[in-house]
Amino acid sequence: MEKGKFYGVGVGPGDPELLTYKAVKVLRKVDVIFIPKSNLEKRSLAFSIVGNYIQNNVEQVEVVLPMTKDEEKLERYWKEAASKIKNTLDEGKDCAFITLGDPGMYSTFSYVLRGILKLDSSIEVEVIPGVSAVNSVSSWLQQPLAEGEESFVVTTALKPEKELKEIIQKFENVVIMKAGKHTEKIASLLQSNNFNCKSLFISRAGFNDVFCSENMNEVSKRSFDYLSTFFIKKYREEEK
Amino acid sequence: MEKGKFYGVGVGPGDPELLTYKAVKVLRKVDVIFIPKSNLEKRSLAFSIVGNYIQNNVEQVEVVLPMTKDEEKLERYWKEAASKIKNTLDEGKDCAFITLGDPGMYSTFSYVLRGILKLDSSIEVEVIPGVSAVNSVSSWLQQPLAEGEESFVVTTALKPEKELKEIIQKFENVVIMKAGKHTEKIASLLQSNNFNCKSLFISRAGFNDVFCSENMNEVSKRSFDYLSTFFIKKYREEEK
Repeated sequence: MEKGKFYGVGVGPGDPELLTYKAVKVLRKVDVIFIPKSNLEKRSLAFSIVGNYIQNNVEQVEVVLPMTKDEEKLERYWKEAASKIKNTLDEGKDCAFITLGDPGMYSTFSYVLRGILKLDSSIEVEVIPGVSAVNSVSSWLQQPLAEGEESFVVTTALKPEKELKEIIQKFENVVIMKAGKHTEKIASLLQSNNFNCKSLFISRAGFNDVFCSENMNEVSKRSFDYLSTFFIKKYREEEK
Repeated sequence: MEKGKFYGVGVGPGDPELLTYKAVKVLRKVDVIFIPKSNLEKRSLAFSIVGNYIQNNVEQVEVVLPMTKDEEKLERYWKEAASKIKNTLDEGKDCAFITLGDPGMYSTFSYVLRGILKLDSSIEVEVIPGVSAVNSVSSWLQQPLAEGEESFVVTTALKPEKELKEIIQKFENVVIMKAGKHTEKIASLLQSNNFNCKSLFISRAGFNDVFCSENMNEVSKRSFDYLSTFFIKKYREEEK
């Protein structure tokens, strides 16, 4: 029997209208949709985005991929997800794995794909890019990620403070993702150093409860989930 | 009279199916679509993506924004574009400015928006993010931009060689955009240094004449346009 094809599908940053036509086309033609879920979520965020676009009769399979730093535990869950998907592909079923934002950016898709290809390197794979959280944040704030000859760095709040400091000093544009419980640490870092930068904070861009602020003092006093981002931009000549 | 609203609309990296529902909704409801064109292009690349989605009777206005390093000349063209759009908004017409990829990433939209807001800071603006070239390249190559606690840098081939070298040494993932006529320089840089990285090159991802290669010798011998990108990834432990 011919094996099924495996699709990684980016569903965008939150607003169902930021889905692409290609993502919807794929989700409407596959046999099975795999839906990643952290054990904390009651309902998959990625699934809530695509829910209204897909056929009612498509097979939906939830895959629990917990957010944990325990590498052994993670490895076990990824392997389990990979073998579940691989078995479905072996039945000749086309499968999609949906992922918030873009499949190439901090997505569990990377691990799952690697796991599947380790089990069977002959699986046909297609990755559908999505609008990423980074582009969504830039649009919300109406601040470009980079212009002309500038660079931008995307990093995470999990990096050591010293490293973050160096990056902020060196680059014109810095996006720090997954702020979550590190929000206060990063806000303080921005307050206590003279980086000569504009600091912006945005949480849950594209959701109804979006929050953004340039006031790092205010930001440091509240708590936010992992969909929280700092965007730090060097002042341009005319802004100084 | 009430002024029109100004939309910046990302139309994605090339494949018309990578347009979002939101982009198409906006392009179908505005009164005027502004289409940026370099003086080299016979036809706007961004327009070729949206051509089949928009109404026939929508007003289309081409805006020439040349690719040049002459800052004075650029400034003049941006100002002209900004004032043209501002005048149309003043007539009460909603206007969209389309842009390849995402409006926040190396797009002329940033300059035009700044120009318009300088003329009239009360203009209502909405930016619709798009699938960026960076996400498209990552999907094509089936290589993640970043996983876990990694960072990635997006920079351009216009940066000095010394700076590019430092970035490649320091970061897990580096994307060098706008390779174009600098392709040979970058390919040589990657060949002649022992960065302990996987180097990938891709030109025109998402177009029919896409080309990709891991062979930097081959890459350095051919010529490519500005839609050319290097993607450089540190080897993971198991790949070494």
